[in-house]
Amino acid sequence: MPAGGHPVARNASFARLTPQHVEHFRKLLGHEVNSVTYATDPDDMNLLPYNVDWIKKYRGQSQLVLKPSTTAQVSQVLAYCHAENLAVVPQGGNTGLVGGSVPVFDEIVLSTGRLNAIRHFDDVSGIVVAEAGVVLESLDNYVGERGFMCPLDLGAKGSCHIGGNVATNAGGLRVLRYGSLHGSVLGLEVVLADGTVVDMLRTLRKDNTGYDLKQLFIGSEGSLGVITAVSLLTPPRLPSTQVGIFAVSTFEDVQRLFIAARRHVGEILSAFEFWDRTSQQLVETQLPTAGTPHLFDAPFYVLLETQGSDADMDREKLERFIERAMDEQKPLVENGAIAQDQTQARAFWETRENISDAATTAGACYKYDISMPVPVLYDLVNDAKAHLKQKGLYDSAQPDQDPVRFITGYGHLGDGNLHLNVVARDFTPEVTQAIEPWVYEWTQRHQGSVSAEHGVGFMKPKYVSYSKDEHSIRIMHGIKAMLDPKGIMNPYKVLQ
Amino acid sequence: MPAGGHPVARNASFARLTPQHVEHFRKLLGHEVNSVTYATDPDDMNLLPYNVDWIKKYRGQSQLVLKPSTTAQVSQVLAYCHAENLAVVPQGGNTGLVGGSVPVFDEIVLSTGRLNAIRHFDDVSGIVVAEAGVVLESLDNYVGERGFMCPLDLGAKGSCHIGGNVATNAGGLRVLRYGSLHGSVLGLEVVLADGTVVDMLRTLRKDNTGYDLKQLFIGSEGSLGVITAVSLLTPPRLPSTQVGIFAVSTFEDVQRLFIAARRHVGEILSAFEFWDRTSQQLVETQLPTAGTPHLFDAPFYVLLETQGSDADMDREKLERFIERAMDEQKPLVENGAIAQDQTQARAFWETRENISDAATTAGACYKYDISMPVPVLYDLVNDAKAHLKQKGLYDSAQPDQDPVRFITGYGHLGDGNLHLNVVARDFTPEVTQAIEPWVYEWTQRHQGSVSAEHGVGFMKPKYVSYSKDEHSIRIMHGIKAMLDPKGIMNPYKVLQ
Repeated sequence: MPAGGHPVARNASFARLTPQHVEHFRKLLGHEVNSVTYATDPDDMNLLPYNVDWIKKYRGQSQLVLKPSTTAQVSQVLAYCHAENLAVVPQGGNTGLVGGSVPVFDEIVLSTGRLNAIRHFDDVSGIVVAEAGVVLESLDNYVGERGFMCPLDLGAKGSCHIGGNVATNAGGLRVLRYGSLHGSVLGLEVVLADGTVVDMLRTLRKDNTGYDLKQLFIGSEGSLGVITAVSLLTPPRLPSTQVGIFAVSTFEDVQRLFIAARRHVGEILSAFEFWDRTSQQLVETQLPTAGTPHLFDAPFYVLLETQGSDADMDREKLERFIERAMDEQKPLVENGAIAQDQTQARAFWETRENISDAATTAGACYKYDISMPVPVLYDLVNDAKAHLKQKGLYDSAQPDQDPVRFITGYGHLGDGNLHLNVVARDFTPEVTQAIEPWVYEWTQRHQGSVSAEHGVGFMKPKYVSYSKDEHSIRIMHGIKAMLDPKGIMNPYKVLQ
Repeated sequence: MPAGGHPVARNASFARLTPQHVEHFRKLLGHEVNSVTYATDPDDMNLLPYNVDWIKKYRGQSQLVLKPSTTAQVSQVLAYCHAENLAVVPQGGNTGLVGGSVPVFDEIVLSTGRLNAIRHFDDVSGIVVAEAGVVLESLDNYVGERGFMCPLDLGAKGSCHIGGNVATNAGGLRVLRYGSLHGSVLGLEVVLADGTVVDMLRTLRKDNTGYDLKQLFIGSEGSLGVITAVSLLTPPRLPSTQVGIFAVSTFEDVQRLFIAARRHVGEILSAFEFWDRTSQQLVETQLPTAGTPHLFDAPFYVLLETQGSDADMDREKLERFIERAMDEQKPLVENGAIAQDQTQARAFWETRENISDAATTAGACYKYDISMPVPVLYDLVNDAKAHLKQKGLYDSAQPDQDPVRFITGYGHLGDGNLHLNVVARDFTPEVTQAIEPWVYEWTQRHQGSVSAEHGVGFMKPKYVSYSKDEHSIRIMHGIKAMLDPKGIMNPYKVLQ
């Protein structure tokens, strides 16, 4: 059984890689430098970065990494793999969190690293056509120089690829303002398992000619084909960004503040993040050098960001909104600060962005990425505390001996997306069994999703049924069988 | 051959309706008033509104209209139709423009008219769950009373159903600001051809657990199943709306104005519509009682609308933007006016909204709904003029005898969506053959879509291949065969 995922056996219908296969790929791609990396030992240092995911939880045994530089090459590679029954794992920046982009056994790694041209940019509409391997930050810089911005922003932007972002339907920090990739992606070029190139690479905001097939590939995690190019709608880059952090007494007030913010600064609101006192304390104690501002003690914190065209107006609007929120008979905001410059704005964001690392540093951290209706969002944290206390694992009479040390919640409130972190002293079966499947059952009862934005990958196929009904899962299998009849695309992932 | 569409023969594998069938449906639904409408004569006045589309171009011969009031009833109806090989056409408000919602032959009409409950509303996130038959305007009023608005707005809102809107992926006036339904629709409940109820009715902004199947049904025009309920993300209703009309010299300047508007009033911009001089003249001459403001003569007109939280700031921002656009060395705007009150704003919008009717009134009007990259958008109008002139049909030495009188273009510039109207004296084969497939071939050459927002329906199945590659069409057929193996759902439509 491979580490870090559900137990599976290698699918015996897949061929084992032979020297003849390698020879064939060398003929196809080998005239270009770094296009074929082969070693008999999967632990070879040249293969290792492709066999291990970045949180080092998953590790495959591939002997071969291919880096085609054109869609035609991707097509030739897959047509051959299909004919030869060779399994393939597509890989972008390898920054996923669920083991979706590394091999489970000996699958060939098909990296998008050399598919990195920007094919087209329309400076009227802001529509860009980029190949799958363009790094998100490079893409953002490219459109940024032309007055636009990527609608997508996430921590890994310096290394993740736009193709991988689309394949995993990455969410991130500004879904609230710019929506999901299901709205921003206007077209895709995809190579199917048998090498067929499907050209859905339109640059149109509206197109109602038949079923919107590209949507199937957004979030399919490479299991239906390889995305080779993306047409993306990018919004104009507006010059004014304002950031504030606010102390709030209750989760109900966090929600009321969100409603009020959408009313009074709605057109410029670009992020509404929240975290609890435990998250703040973890950042202050675990990552004290990070320059985290300790502004005030509070049960909840909200980071609110605006983006607009006029700095003076935006700031006036935000200040007036916060004044009003503090002046209410029952104030929505107890305390707060608006960043005075970009350095302070950066420090505010750092606090929010460091929570995940602070929790990881504090112990053995169980991380869950849940979405649910906003009103019940924080109930999961409270219920998890009560549940683990009742199991005798947390908040006992002798807290210094509790197996679970911290339970904390934070996330993208505007998206109904909670990151629940349970920090134990060690990863133990006792703790694991107390949390899982309890957390998934809780999510199902509250009509939530067991993977809001991280995807299914190798980690969660057995949990999909907590968020999808049996008929949906049956249809998914039907689509997979239709597009990839031999099942060679990213096997053991997404669907069980 | 039925009127108004491509020639097809009735599919002989479908059963003919028998008294036993009708009896069965009466047992299923007949205890509720108006749930079963049956007549042996399809021209019976009770059936006629369901057999004829609203532009009266398409006319079917159904003898039976069913109006289930629950999802369970829809399931029972379809399970029976599936077992008995009875073909079905789902119908919402019957406001479509491509014959998608009326029978072609004797298909049973399954109306969503009694599926009209609003099931749930979350006033933190603005997510509403409505049954398919809720009229768009009613839905907008419902969420409006709670401080939100439908992200979708179109002329037919007083009669179209939200289920039909989703089934046709309706676009309309505010896609520019609020995006397409592929982003706003968070969940669907769908009944498949065999009666299976697929529950994808989540109220989550983020959910990455497997393939996003609901997307297939958005824009499938009832050919894959019946949408019975919709979960929709609605944005906050902001209190300030400003509208202006501006005279612009060239289409290049229209584009420059659009770019500038996104930079300087981007966060409040909610519509950017344009039309040409011919459109304006048609409105002024054909619908002179409509209170159309004749403000100025110009080659192009732009209607710009903003929506925001602060009327004073919005107005100042808009006025400053327009002043700047007029003060440039080469002014982007020749002349213009910002509405002083809601009555004037309404009159401005009326001009834009009356163009379609004015063109229809002026003669035999060929209407095309094309999307393409913005820079080439208006080239289609110029090229159509040159093409029809070269054919001797337009702008000849004896213009009062030309078969084609007006060629005009208008539409949603921000969406790259052009409505091309060719007004002839009469519908003649000579004119038809001169325009089609020329207009579709032109669209294909420019990477456009032959149906931006109206859909395929019965009118355009043979033109889908101008906008979709052969592999996409093959996959569409595969999905249709998987979900509706007997092909009973809305036959003769969407796919050929």
